[in-house]
Amino acid sequence: MKILLTNDDGIHAPGLAALVEAVAGLGEITVVAPEAEMSAVGHAITLTDPLKVKEYNKNGKFFGYAVDGTPADCVKIAAWALFKDQPAPDLLISGINLGANTGINTIYSGTVSAATEGAILGIPSFAVSLATFKNPDFSAAAEFARYLAPLMIKQKLPAGVYLNVNVPAVPRSQIKGIQITRQSKANYREEYHVRTDPRNNKYYWLTGEKINIEKEEDVDDRAILDNKISVMPIHYDLTHYQSLDSMRQWDLQWK
Amino acid sequence: MKILLTNDDGIHAPGLAALVEAVAGLGEITVVAPEAEMSAVGHAITLTDPLKVKEYNKNGKFFGYAVDGTPADCVKIAAWALFKDQPAPDLLISGINLGANTGINTIYSGTVSAATEGAILGIPSFAVSLATFKNPDFSAAAEFARYLAPLMIKQKLPAGVYLNVNVPAVPRSQIKGIQITRQSKANYREEYHVRTDPRNNKYYWLTGEKINIEKEEDVDDRAILDNKISVMPIHYDLTHYQSLDSMRQWDLQWK
Repeated sequence: MKILLTNDDGIHAPGLAALVEAVAGLGEITVVAPEAEMSAVGHAITLTDPLKVKEYNKNGKFFGYAVDGTPADCVKIAAWALFKDQPAPDLLISGINLGANTGINTIYSGTVSAATEGAILGIPSFAVSLATFKNPDFSAAAEFARYLAPLMIKQKLPAGVYLNVNVPAVPRSQIKGIQITRQSKANYREEYHVRTDPRNNKYYWLTGEKINIEKEEDVDDRAILDNKISVMPIHYDLTHYQSLDSMRQWDLQWK
Repeated sequence: MKILLTNDDGIHAPGLAALVEAVAGLGEITVVAPEAEMSAVGHAITLTDPLKVKEYNKNGKFFGYAVDGTPADCVKIAAWALFKDQPAPDLLISGINLGANTGINTIYSGTVSAATEGAILGIPSFAVSLATFKNPDFSAAAEFARYLAPLMIKQKLPAGVYLNVNVPAVPRSQIKGIQITRQSKANYREEYHVRTDPRNNKYYWLTGEKINIEKEEDVDDRAILDNKISVMPIHYDLTHYQSLDSMRQWDLQWK
């Protein structure tokens, strides 16, 4: 089994190292990850600049390929340039991300976008994130990734469907199980801290908190609050099919 | 009627100027757009750096606010900082983008992500793009945006649903009508041109072409090929609902 690993926290990130260690015994592991931290890059790809790829060593040993681009770039360049003459990987895993990618955060997530690129290429793919930014203990998320990896290959999801996994940041013994989830509709209440620089220009720092998280246990944000592992099937067809019929009633005209 | 305009080609872009001109008579227009070109930034937001906002003049007159961030940043900072004490806009329009945002390009699009932010804020929103990179004539797209603006407010879409509009790059007289569409599933066949820099490092330029565009007339990529204006209802709930039941059969265990 060939597994391609990537992330958006960068090739140096401990979450990626934990993932490599977790799946090491499952097959042939290849790491292609951003050289720099790429959080909240969304589904960015690099079009206007060329990409460079470096071999990256860790503790004196080859660890993987560092790309000066985004997570989506890493998956694209792996498939279409670095390993284009080889069979496609059997599985792609993106993570382990520092910080939850649940609810609306899913759409901003570089971690998820890498799994999206995997799905576009027809590779069984999942993203895995740990719901904390501080003092991360990746062990439960790593264990779950290892558990899910062979299942993803056995249980075939429909074309274009992949998984977004989020793990609560609690000790393993406090995890209350696995919840199949849908994306929360909770929004952010945003706040910009306004400051003034030494040249008297204003600048704005974004902060925000999620409000109105739904109570239903099958909502991804709620699952994390309930100390459950959230597993959400995700796809990249953004069409709102339910509106197609009602929009035909608009009777749009172009004369 | 208050209209907020933004784009991803930057505040200097002629497509934005064409949009401003098109909707000028409809109400109070405010422009908040990226200072620099931001194509293919996806749904990026700026978290690790502060944002600066400058007043931008054009032909000696105030034109709008230039933000050193992404399209999504522009919408967020407009709503939560620049105009936070004012009523929300009645409409948000993002564009007119240079290049189609149809099919899979939708997920990479900064233009669309700005409309997504509008929808998140509960503002009727649409993105509008012209399907060419060369010698753009924005007049038909601008005319359609002006036609659609009051309709968007009258015809209420469900919460979280907005529109992705793409206009073929042909003379107005050759446009064959308006098509309500869904997102094409056509993928790219990517190619990286590999070159060597003066220091003998390899670098990779991404190119690619879309292949296997569906034949059905209600597919967005096909509508453009058929010289029709594509209007797609879009949402940001990425859950693949059809897989929720089948995933419960996986019987995931965590002991």
